Amino acid sequence: MSNTSKIYVKNLGKFVTGVYGKSFLDVLREAGVSIRADCGGIGECGKCRIVIEKGFSSPLTESEKRFLSIDEISKGFRLACQAKVIDGEYIVSIPQESILQRYRSADVGFEKEVALKPLVKKVFIVTNPASLEDVRSDLDRVLDEVFKKVSLGDVDVDAYVAKIVPNALRLGRWSATVVFWKNKILTIEPGDTSNRVYGVAVDIGTSKVVAHLVDLVSGETVAVESMPNPQASYGADIISRISYAIKDGSNLEKLQKLVISAVNILIDRMVSRTGVDKSNIYEVVVAGNTAMHHLFLGIDPRYLGLSPYVPAVRRGVYAFAKEIGININERGVVYALPVVAGYVGSDALADAIAVDLDNCDAPCLLIDIGTNSEILLNTGREILACSTPAGPAFEGATIEFGMRAVAGAIDQVFIYFDKSIGDYNVRYSVVGNAKPVGICGSALIDAIANLYKNGLIDSRGRFKNNVNSKRIVVENNRKKFVIAWASETGINKNITIDGRDINEFLLAKAAVAAGINVLLKHANITAENLSKIFVAGSFGTHINIENAITTGLLPKTDTRKYIFVGNTAISGAKMALKSSDVREKFEELAKKIKYIELTIHPLFKQEFINSLQLPPNHT
Amino acid sequence: MSNTSKIYVKNLGKFVTGVYGKSFLDVLREAGVSIRADCGGIGECGKCRIVIEKGFSSPLTESEKRFLSIDEISKGFRLACQAKVIDGEYIVSIPQESILQRYRSADVGFEKEVALKPLVKKVFIVTNPASLEDVRSDLDRVLDEVFKKVSLGDVDVDAYVAKIVPNALRLGRWSATVVFWKNKILTIEPGDTSNRVYGVAVDIGTSKVVAHLVDLVSGETVAVESMPNPQASYGADIISRISYAIKDGSNLEKLQKLVISAVNILIDRMVSRTGVDKSNIYEVVVAGNTAMHHLFLGIDPRYLGLSPYVPAVRRGVYAFAKEIGININERGVVYALPVVAGYVGSDALADAIAVDLDNCDAPCLLIDIGTNSEILLNTGREILACSTPAGPAFEGATIEFGMRAVAGAIDQVFIYFDKSIGDYNVRYSVVGNAKPVGICGSALIDAIANLYKNGLIDSRGRFKNNVNSKRIVVENNRKKFVIAWASETGINKNITIDGRDINEFLLAKAAVAAGINVLLKHANITAENLSKIFVAGSFGTHINIENAITTGLLPKTDTRKYIFVGNTAISGAKMALKSSDVREKFEELAKKIKYIELTIHPLFKQEFINSLQLPPNHT
Repeated sequence: MSNTSKIYVKNLGKFVTGVYGKSFLDVLREAGVSIRADCGGIGECGKCRIVIEKGFSSPLTESEKRFLSIDEISKGFRLACQAKVIDGEYIVSIPQESILQRYRSADVGFEKEVALKPLVKKVFIVTNPASLEDVRSDLDRVLDEVFKKVSLGDVDVDAYVAKIVPNALRLGRWSATVVFWKNKILTIEPGDTSNRVYGVAVDIGTSKVVAHLVDLVSGETVAVESMPNPQASYGADIISRISYAIKDGSNLEKLQKLVISAVNILIDRMVSRTGVDKSNIYEVVVAGNTAMHHLFLGIDPRYLGLSPYVPAVRRGVYAFAKEIGININERGVVYALPVVAGYVGSDALADAIAVDLDNCDAPCLLIDIGTNSEILLNTGREILACSTPAGPAFEGATIEFGMRAVAGAIDQVFIYFDKSIGDYNVRYSVVGNAKPVGICGSALIDAIANLYKNGLIDSRGRFKNNVNSKRIVVENNRKKFVIAWASETGINKNITIDGRDINEFLLAKAAVAAGINVLLKHANITAENLSKIFVAGSFGTHINIENAITTGLLPKTDTRKYIFVGNTAISGAKMALKSSDVREKFEELAKKIKYIELTIHPLFKQEFINSLQLPPNHT
Repeated sequence: MSNTSKIYVKNLGKFVTGVYGKSFLDVLREAGVSIRADCGGIGECGKCRIVIEKGFSSPLTESEKRFLSIDEISKGFRLACQAKVIDGEYIVSIPQESILQRYRSADVGFEKEVALKPLVKKVFIVTNPASLEDVRSDLDRVLDEVFKKVSLGDVDVDAYVAKIVPNALRLGRWSATVVFWKNKILTIEPGDTSNRVYGVAVDIGTSKVVAHLVDLVSGETVAVESMPNPQASYGADIISRISYAIKDGSNLEKLQKLVISAVNILIDRMVSRTGVDKSNIYEVVVAGNTAMHHLFLGIDPRYLGLSPYVPAVRRGVYAFAKEIGININERGVVYALPVVAGYVGSDALADAIAVDLDNCDAPCLLIDIGTNSEILLNTGREILACSTPAGPAFEGATIEFGMRAVAGAIDQVFIYFDKSIGDYNVRYSVVGNAKPVGICGSALIDAIANLYKNGLIDSRGRFKNNVNSKRIVVENNRKKFVIAWASETGINKNITIDGRDINEFLLAKAAVAAGINVLLKHANITAENLSKIFVAGSFGTHINIENAITTGLLPKTDTRKYIFVGNTAISGAKMALKSSDVREKFEELAKKIKYIELTIHPLFKQEFINSLQLPPNHT
């Protein structure tokens, strides 16, 4: 009898090795399969279902009997945290709902494949040397050959090109590579450089800047980098950043320089890691919310902060990279993708493009949850969009122990009644394997949903009086639920949630829920009608969908309709970088999308009030 | 009997007043009619013919009997310098050939009228203020109104426009003027500025820079300025300037900055004189020979100085004015007109456009005489062009007493046998009413033609031995002809012409004549076939056509075919400034013109040798 077993995982299409006595959860996780286990693998949530189609495992546990039906048990369903590897060969399959549809990094997202058709094109030509018999100008000599190879309309030539052509042509011994951007000659390089064409896609988030370096010959993404948006020290959210920008004449430029420098740092990192020559990067495509878009371009954002919150420009904006300080090829171009409205930016538009919202089985919904949450609904007849100011609760700002999802943040919480101690107990996971120092938004949702499902709080978020638990403590006259005891933490303090935190959350979730409901009602659609609900954005990728539904943040419907698409802002930007057709789609969609201003919508106020409670029939 | 007479001048269509005893030449000159009088009004040249149709003048003089035929006398022909005002009323007409077809200033030229169609367009719009019911972006709000007024294709928007639109719109209380350059938005100005649109045309000559400020709403030229090309201190001619530019890495930039600063100075002068706001100048159109074109744009001119002398670029080149340092509207555009070849620049092309060479009664010829002389021939089937390096003799550089046509330069010379002293005598005029200090190119032609006609030199330009004159002196073993005695001059030296000077002239004129002859022979056309001969350029406007023909510089044919068109380089540039159609014509013509490289043309060498002599049958 060997100590190890061979386990064929159908989803992977290959064998993995399991050691005797190990849980299937551990084995599968080690093999790289992200299996859901909200409770962290203690048999308390019932989410880690797998099907052992062949092979003998450990006997069913009490926990499994609780979560699995007779029918399921007969089909081989087990909880991966309970079933242990014994001996022999196994065949295991994992139902889709047990797999975490998550992107490993918040810096990537779902990306629809597009045919390469970048705006930057290189044409390599060889020409005859100038002679007394052939006194064509250097540029004509080049262009005559170009026109033999590609058909272009009128070519745009400026002084820069006229300046560089003589030496480029002679350095390349009468061969050169012409770099076009649309029909404009960006530059002319000596010899053949046609296999070196790169571009960068950037997503400028309020709190984070993400960049992808793309080989525009192969279409491959060759590097990904991200860093916090350095503007954050001048305001965590959009409104405070706008306030800072307009407080003093030089502040706008300061904020612009900060984000430009961040993009430059990301580009530097990507080129140094890949060995790509920065002068072979010819275009940067930028997505971001409208405020980030304005600050990036140096546009005064004051009118975004004042009713009626109109942006300066909706259409896509081009600039020379040099002009705004982006360090790529000295003739490189920057394209800021179009925005929809003052609070529906090019990031939301990029989300919609990446998931192909325009062509989904309508009706379908796209939600990008953040400080400002954008909601887009393809009703089948039109695409509606709105923005709802959830505020910074999801990012931890107004929560006593709230923090972003960085190292030390509790990002998942599971509250259950632990019979072994006769009290409520908590399992949690922490970002970065550190001691916990706070809780982030996804954990807040988990905690509140769990407190509610376990009957610890009522639908208005108040702690019930009839519940006794050591975890419910009173500090400064306020009831608090202890998520992590002081001794477990990195701050030597209980990490708790109190009524005020819950209230902040309810305000935030009401804003989102009301936005969704207004759009649905405006279009006369119910959540049940929706074919798909795309959840985009880095916050979205970390939340537990059932818990979000329990709290009423997301509409109650079949959870299989929900698709986590990750950072589709960067995906959409990358698609636009790769294809001029996609860029046209951006422009069209920006025009086509019907913006719904919630603040004046007749349904909004009531929907918001209705959404302030936790929904009655929780899952 | 009154002391004054009324003289009706038919050409002017009005009466002028003549004082008893004054010559008609003086009366007409005072009235502003430029009458030819090569000899300066001493009855020795016979060029100042007028017709006194009514009225009694002084009796015919000996001089008139010499120059006028019986038939002419019977028709009332007189020499204006000889006929004097007596009494009563006169009706006078002046034959076309007696009128100097000259532009008062070398800074202007013949300009074909063009319909205004500038590339810069202003559209004034009024829009609704942004409101929660109308949250269109600022730019959409503007463009929606623009599109109601004018039909434009896709509008080009860059970051600058996005930056300025919010404040422009609000400062103008939701009204603004959009400034387009083609379909690109240059800028957006608050309120209505649509009546303030200006442009500048510039002719960058090797020795002089000329600028015109044009009101692009009315089409009027509102100011003209010129100054020496400050690059001249780094080389008087093209070749020495190219040599300087490539001698050291920073020289090209230095030369570029010099000419840019000259253009800025001219603009400054024009705006301060007219009160035009510099920010209302949106475009500068530049003509110049190819070397000046390259230096203006900062293009390395080294390949213009090396065989096969190819330019970097033929087509017109656009640049932002700011980019190259021209101080107009900060978003203004500079357009450097297309060139034909390394030595046929946009100035020659502008000449051709201004006189409409493409549509003349073919065959017709255009000559722009200078250090490099450009010759264009419309054969009826095609337009040929060549450039011939006359060298700086016409500008005085290789002539002992040579100088440019500035104050103190003898610019006209008339040599005649003065019976009263029994020797050859000289009449001359001086630029600027100063004492003479040298002779310029036009006077050199006059002097040599006169010496030849009077039999003082032979066809090879050598002083004949059998001629005795006090004016022929021997200095340093060389025979010299005295144009001005030391006592008359501002340099206390005889101003003379000697055999070496004549030789330098013959080399220069042979280059021009050979160029003309090669083009004519290449096209199988004789001078007699030509319908018109346009003489362009500031040098051209000062020469005496018969004398130029006598020397063989210009082809012998009916002098009435010759048309002095002045500085048509600036006229053509101005036409291009006023009209995008003209600009297209420039591009087309630059492509269409067939450049003939003289140095390798089989006929050139022989034609040059043939042209080294003075022609046998002089007029």
